[in-house]
Amino acid sequence: MEGRGRGNMSLLVTGSIGIDTIKTPYGESRDCLGGSSIYFSMAASFFSPVRLVGVIGADCPFDLSKVFAGRKVDLTGLEVRPHSKTFRWAGSYRDNMDDRTTDCLELNVLAEHPPTVPAQFRDSEFVFLANTTPKLQLELLGQIESPTFVAADTMNCWIQDRRDDLNTLLKKIDCLIINEDEAKMLAAEFNLIKAAEKILGMGPGVVIIKKGESGSIMIQSDSNVARASSPCKHGQACPERSRRDGRATNINRLFVLPAYPAADVKDPTGAGDSFAGALLGHLAQTGKIDFDSLKTAVAYGTVVASFTISDFSLQGLASITKNDIDKRLETLRKLTDF
Amino acid sequence: MEGRGRGNMSLLVTGSIGIDTIKTPYGESRDCLGGSSIYFSMAASFFSPVRLVGVIGADCPFDLSKVFAGRKVDLTGLEVRPHSKTFRWAGSYRDNMDDRTTDCLELNVLAEHPPTVPAQFRDSEFVFLANTTPKLQLELLGQIESPTFVAADTMNCWIQDRRDDLNTLLKKIDCLIINEDEAKMLAAEFNLIKAAEKILGMGPGVVIIKKGESGSIMIQSDSNVARASSPCKHGQACPERSRRDGRATNINRLFVLPAYPAADVKDPTGAGDSFAGALLGHLAQTGKIDFDSLKTAVAYGTVVASFTISDFSLQGLASITKNDIDKRLETLRKLTDF
Repeated sequence: MEGRGRGNMSLLVTGSIGIDTIKTPYGESRDCLGGSSIYFSMAASFFSPVRLVGVIGADCPFDLSKVFAGRKVDLTGLEVRPHSKTFRWAGSYRDNMDDRTTDCLELNVLAEHPPTVPAQFRDSEFVFLANTTPKLQLELLGQIESPTFVAADTMNCWIQDRRDDLNTLLKKIDCLIINEDEAKMLAAEFNLIKAAEKILGMGPGVVIIKKGESGSIMIQSDSNVARASSPCKHGQACPERSRRDGRATNINRLFVLPAYPAADVKDPTGAGDSFAGALLGHLAQTGKIDFDSLKTAVAYGTVVASFTISDFSLQGLASITKNDIDKRLETLRKLTDF
Repeated sequence: MEGRGRGNMSLLVTGSIGIDTIKTPYGESRDCLGGSSIYFSMAASFFSPVRLVGVIGADCPFDLSKVFAGRKVDLTGLEVRPHSKTFRWAGSYRDNMDDRTTDCLELNVLAEHPPTVPAQFRDSEFVFLANTTPKLQLELLGQIESPTFVAADTMNCWIQDRRDDLNTLLKKIDCLIINEDEAKMLAAEFNLIKAAEKILGMGPGVVIIKKGESGSIMIQSDSNVARASSPCKHGQACPERSRRDGRATNINRLFVLPAYPAADVKDPTGAGDSFAGALLGHLAQTGKIDFDSLKTAVAYGTVVASFTISDFSLQGLASITKNDIDKRLETLRKLTDF
């Protein structure tokens, strides 16, 4: 079947491109390149070519073709709006490197209409919809003809304020990648395993919950097993989806992984998006979405995120090779083996 | 060498025996049996005979010989003080099953002098000093002739208020088993890996940090490796100890393990002490304290704690067999394998 086991399938990301100012106990990085699609693309590009869809203003000081020089990141979907300003974010991390406060948020061009997915990107097979309003995520997804595997992220404000749109989105995606607190909020359930099961009942066949320095868990729907092994090209309309429910956990479809134990954390920004980037990058590279492939993908996400947080902005990712990633994957395997 | 690889070595625990009243979102258990030495002994007894040293008052409504009927728990060290009252604790867990408040704490007999270690227990080879004042832990340890492997727990109030005693204790034990927040407090360090390394520098050759539903990490001192593989019988005076320092992490002496993903958590009380019980029980059973044995021991601790929290008081442990534990260990291995 098409989409199964064919390597190097196309991978598209839609998400933000921003000018970040980050303060951590280890220093400050002013006006550096950030945004979900940037971290995602950098991480994914170690595994697979990436198609980036995003929008910036004329004020953007970064030449993305230089940022991604030597990496297979296709910038055809980069839209520069001459009369708009680029998204800006400034944040400060406390001593524990977990709590952070947003010092400044200027949506700017992100508050306008979303970018258009270029015609030559519409056949994309693997898609990541980085965090933005569920309505925009739906609009962007609607521009992709028949994706094989769609993953999305979301956050607390959309769970609270845009629930109808989010519910619609959840029925149209294959995989939700979400933070622990947001998973609990979405499911209205404190126990994380029960929360993950409840989210499966909302639509996605796979739920991956990011727990920061405590690692991640992944759960796959039993009813989704057949589909995931042999993906249906008509995800959005497939009646299989509507039959998904929150039945009891099948231990064979559950995966738990600690974070890579990192003694040197300088800047946690972008950890989640580079986790997703490596994860989707590995899946697109192999063209497989069976549970074993998903487990390896989560492990790659974990490892790549550990490089991201070791330095400010993209420096942690810019200085490594795929070989470094593979070596650390083997270290992680050893660290968790008993 | 004695103490290495000889199975079924003696295991002694000193700790509290209490009358607990526990409220969780799943119900209430009034005046049930609790206390660190009780959870520890129950958990350890699946692996190894246990020597319990503890003290109760005449009011204690539990017949411990019946509680441990059919289990190899030697109660020679149980002291009943006719004019004293038994330790009592009442606590309530919030919806997240993590935060808890102490509703009532009556130290009673625990505020008196510690129990005496019976003469026939003084040759104990494996020792667990459950949480109490470091001074009492030192007094109890002083009654053991030449232990092979001593582990201890401690908590925030002793870290803050009894630091000198605690520092002395840390130099005399082989292994500290401690909660995440307390490890960070003890080391004055937010990063958990750095905190663990700093604690190694305080004395123990092995530090195991419990992270609740996020699992655990274990780190072993490089300088301790030779000693741990071939334990010195004169732990307290051994000059090797004074040379331990906080040198950079050796990835070969680090282990990270997620918690067993438990959808049904009814009462987290005793999780930490049954984790320690299974851990020390496995080590005493095998008589080995090399790093691979320690890793398996941590995994057993993780699994047994998951049974403890599945029901109130000791019910979760009382209803299982060693075979259930071994099966779940294999499940945990599978859940973390990639």
